[in-house]
Amino acid sequence: MRKNSKAAIIDAAIYLFNTKGFNGTSVRDIAARADVNAANISYYFQNKNGLLENCFTVFFESYLKELEQGFAFLEYGSEYCLNAMVGNVLRYQCENIQLTRFILREMTIDSQVVREIMSTYHVKERYMFKKVLETGIEKGEFKKHSVLYSILQLKGLLQMPFLNTHYVTEVLHVLPHEKYFADKYSDEISQWIKGTLCTDQQVHQKMLINI
Amino acid sequence: MRKNSKAAIIDAAIYLFNTKGFNGTSVRDIAARADVNAANISYYFQNKNGLLENCFTVFFESYLKELEQGFAFLEYGSEYCLNAMVGNVLRYQCENIQLTRFILREMTIDSQVVREIMSTYHVKERYMFKKVLETGIEKGEFKKHSVLYSILQLKGLLQMPFLNTHYVTEVLHVLPHEKYFADKYSDEISQWIKGTLCTDQQVHQKMLINI
Repeated sequence: MRKNSKAAIIDAAIYLFNTKGFNGTSVRDIAARADVNAANISYYFQNKNGLLENCFTVFFESYLKELEQGFAFLEYGSEYCLNAMVGNVLRYQCENIQLTRFILREMTIDSQVVREIMSTYHVKERYMFKKVLETGIEKGEFKKHSVLYSILQLKGLLQMPFLNTHYVTEVLHVLPHEKYFADKYSDEISQWIKGTLCTDQQVHQKMLINI
Repeated sequence: MRKNSKAAIIDAAIYLFNTKGFNGTSVRDIAARADVNAANISYYFQNKNGLLENCFTVFFESYLKELEQGFAFLEYGSEYCLNAMVGNVLRYQCENIQLTRFILREMTIDSQVVREIMSTYHVKERYMFKKVLETGIEKGEFKKHSVLYSILQLKGLLQMPFLNTHYVTEVLHVLPHEKYFADKYSDEISQWIKGTLCTDQQVHQKMLINI
């Protein structure tokens, strides 16, 4: 068995799930594309559902790690911390664009796996975003805003270009798979954080100095 | 043939597509749920694909009409106009939450129908958003911002709660099917428009009056 055959199986599965759909893909197709024996797939993942669950786990474990690394900066201020979380997530999602697209699309269905993911990973994610937003409000960095609606907006911004890759590429001619995209789009979300969440403190201070 | 059987077929189809998926739904299932004879479905839509295309057309024709009605306010200012467009779209999407969810999910796939929809409806939508944003920038109402990235953000905000209904309901406890949601979320997006797109003109003017 090749050393990297597990990774090759996952890559092949994601490609096929994205193009032919989960139901339209057979274990045989995956084995052929990954250039492995179908028995390898059974060995690592039992069956196609095991492979699907593995994709979810791989994605969300890494996703949460990226969030946590940004969250660790909370003592440096909420705006700084939120920007770090956004930057990390976007970089990760750009580097794993096929997997991200597949997972985000699967998450829009109401299934048993999705409910389990929500009650573990999404609850942890909500805890971190809530903490950052509430700390920002307490310390006067952020406006007194509905925290849950802010999370809703932020999540919408973070997933849009990955879930709608074709729209974004074909209609807006923005290319999420290009290297500069993660940086450019992080800047855009920073503008949203500054404009929509932050208090006018800094603007006021500048005005007073000017006058 | 009952007068409203066409509408009943569409309602039944959307419900079944959302719960069992397009491939997992048969014409027989749809006929049973709509309480019509399967021949009625052939009469109106030929087959399941015809029914799917009809769902797309119904959604996007109404969606564009809502946008156009808001777009007509451009002479009253870009911020006012964009708020009207957002308010109309959110109200329509809340009133047709099942259809919206299904269509937005289908639009994330790369298919022939999706490409056709993009080249007609999405191009018209882009024209309107672009015109409003560019007019706002020209007249000094909006900051000099990347127009296409602003559309990307706006689209992300508009679709988030409808595409991720389960996440929004189960994790954030925000209920998109409640009556107040459209108004509340329109206000949220207005804050985004004011904070992220609008120039600081008004803030500055207020500051000068206070001082």
